[in-house]
Amino acid sequence: MRIVAVRERTVPLASPIRNAWISFAEMTCSIVAVVTDVVRDGRPVVGFGFNSNGRYGQGGLLRERFIPRLLAADPRELLDAGGGNLDPARLRACLMRNEKPGGHGERSVAVGTLDMAAWDVVAKVEGRPLADALAARHGRSADPSVRVYAAGGYYQTDKPIESLQAELRRYLDRGFTTVKMKIGGAPLQEDLARIEAAIAVTGHPDRVAVDANGRLSVPDALAVARAIEPLGLAWYEEPVDPLDYAGHAEVARAYDGPLATGENLFSVPDVRNLVRHGGLRPDRDLLQMDPVLGYGLVEYVEMIELLEASGWNRRSLLPHGGHLLNLHAAAGLGLGGVEAYPEVFEPYGGWGEQCNIADGRATVPQVPGLGLETHPPLRAILDTLLD
Amino acid sequence: MRIVAVRERTVPLASPIRNAWISFAEMTCSIVAVVTDVVRDGRPVVGFGFNSNGRYGQGGLLRERFIPRLLAADPRELLDAGGGNLDPARLRACLMRNEKPGGHGERSVAVGTLDMAAWDVVAKVEGRPLADALAARHGRSADPSVRVYAAGGYYQTDKPIESLQAELRRYLDRGFTTVKMKIGGAPLQEDLARIEAAIAVTGHPDRVAVDANGRLSVPDALAVARAIEPLGLAWYEEPVDPLDYAGHAEVARAYDGPLATGENLFSVPDVRNLVRHGGLRPDRDLLQMDPVLGYGLVEYVEMIELLEASGWNRRSLLPHGGHLLNLHAAAGLGLGGVEAYPEVFEPYGGWGEQCNIADGRATVPQVPGLGLETHPPLRAILDTLLD
Repeated sequence: MRIVAVRERTVPLASPIRNAWISFAEMTCSIVAVVTDVVRDGRPVVGFGFNSNGRYGQGGLLRERFIPRLLAADPRELLDAGGGNLDPARLRACLMRNEKPGGHGERSVAVGTLDMAAWDVVAKVEGRPLADALAARHGRSADPSVRVYAAGGYYQTDKPIESLQAELRRYLDRGFTTVKMKIGGAPLQEDLARIEAAIAVTGHPDRVAVDANGRLSVPDALAVARAIEPLGLAWYEEPVDPLDYAGHAEVARAYDGPLATGENLFSVPDVRNLVRHGGLRPDRDLLQMDPVLGYGLVEYVEMIELLEASGWNRRSLLPHGGHLLNLHAAAGLGLGGVEAYPEVFEPYGGWGEQCNIADGRATVPQVPGLGLETHPPLRAILDTLLD
Repeated sequence: MRIVAVRERTVPLASPIRNAWISFAEMTCSIVAVVTDVVRDGRPVVGFGFNSNGRYGQGGLLRERFIPRLLAADPRELLDAGGGNLDPARLRACLMRNEKPGGHGERSVAVGTLDMAAWDVVAKVEGRPLADALAARHGRSADPSVRVYAAGGYYQTDKPIESLQAELRRYLDRGFTTVKMKIGGAPLQEDLARIEAAIAVTGHPDRVAVDANGRLSVPDALAVARAIEPLGLAWYEEPVDPLDYAGHAEVARAYDGPLATGENLFSVPDVRNLVRHGGLRPDRDLLQMDPVLGYGLVEYVEMIELLEASGWNRRSLLPHGGHLLNLHAAAGLGLGGVEAYPEVFEPYGGWGEQCNIADGRATVPQVPGLGLETHPPLRAILDTLLD
């Protein structure tokens, strides 16, 4: 078996939204196809991947460094022991050859995108959903039904309260039960009014999470903590800069409810520092590292091992990213749930009919691989890589 | 005043060397030219920049994100209060618009490369060496004579001891007094023999520094520390992974001599974590953050402010990178010295005749800007951007 071609293209992921930190009007992502010489159902197996939102497409790094490194490798170097399938761990080792330690950004996205496509290949060659392929590798059974929450609640300039409530109502109508909204981009009193409006829609404060996107100073994050603590929200996400571990510890000492963070930590060393210095509490806090932004599922599994060795339970993991890779990872590895963006970044969420969202849960598509092709608008874009 | 064009090209920085972590056989770097409409000596002012070794060229990020963002900005947004010169801090703010926090790698190199060119413009418009322009901004006087050490001592397969000694002798002949060599890529006994051979050449153990490039595990780093401590070396660099702050603290508790680290920390938040959790000792340890790999001199000055507020002296700063930007920064901001690579990465060191290396010191070229053009082989390459 060998990889015969790797295709990539940068596509717009533009959405008319902003969080407390950035606008998404010019956001892009990379889509990739890893074409193999393995034939299934009369056609060559192709693995697809794309990177999660927020960090832009990585076409330059893919074309200039990572795809050439992959294609220059001895094909056997990328295969599992039997030689009949890709081994994503060996693929990652090949991609990271001659890369220095530290500086975990951008390249972690390029590598994570190729890792996603590699896992799609692996599961297609095995002829089963990735969740099952992952579970088998870890001596588990996949649970195809996964907790999922709807991320949205971005700032709207027109009728902010009414549009927020209408948006969240649409999420409940689609089968979600827990929603997440942005805070930290408006004065505290305004955010509190938005939060109250959201609680009025979901009916339960523990079905509303708030996300400051790492924008607040520690004193401001503490002021928010004091203001929202009595509400009993689902969680308070990225209160301060993602790398300010001591700042997280300060917020954790002051805030009794669950905190969440990790979507901007792209490597095992960064996660180790959060565990060591972030003062988070394994009995309630949530960790949202995103496999595709952080070197891929191979690195993500190392993060899980590190966390479990440090007293964490994998049910505390809720990966950022909102796509089917994470749904399979949660189902196959027993994570606590996943994020979805029902109205933005379409069609890269891939939350089509086949996911059967109901009662706050989604179901892994029961097709070989990730099942990205089961979402027709996504399939149409991915197919352009094969022209 | 305005920027009329930004040109970039990826060039090979290949060298037949390896450190404990990577081979440099396929290393590249980005060169950039920022062309302005300001005329000096009858010609438009052009600022040049390139990125330091070790992290590859960033052509993709420059072309896809950062140069378009710069050219799309209102030109006035990039200027100082008088409107007659670029303001690199405002340029950085423009480049980092719609970038999320965390994930400080690759983009930090692209932004740092443009920052270098911007400072070249600033000093050329002011008609003085960058060292003087920087000193004036910080209420200091530049000291154009700067301590410099020669980095080399990479692993050689042929006659390792003899070639190491011959190489270090050439550095002493060129006017360097302190040299740095790689360790951690061979068994400890072999490295110890190499270190003894280096001391025999310099005549003083405190003129030999050793660099493990972040490759060692903490136990291995401690074993090296015990073995080299009696020698009294100049410093022991990057003993463990650059982000393993607790690991640094463990080595610092066990090793009485100076430690050095920081070349793989690319942001203020990362440096803050090193200060908080790294257990380093301001009275002896050395910090080697590289302005061009870490968002540029604007971010670097923020690092200096953070360090001074934490009890560090700026004489403890010895930036990685080996080029004239750092020489000017050291001269203008009063740093402890700079690194040079006399035999590798040529001509990007730019250590031409005009730097008058003698007695372990180098002199800032006394021309407007960085003076990259005073090194003819470098000028020949940079001029290709203007064709």
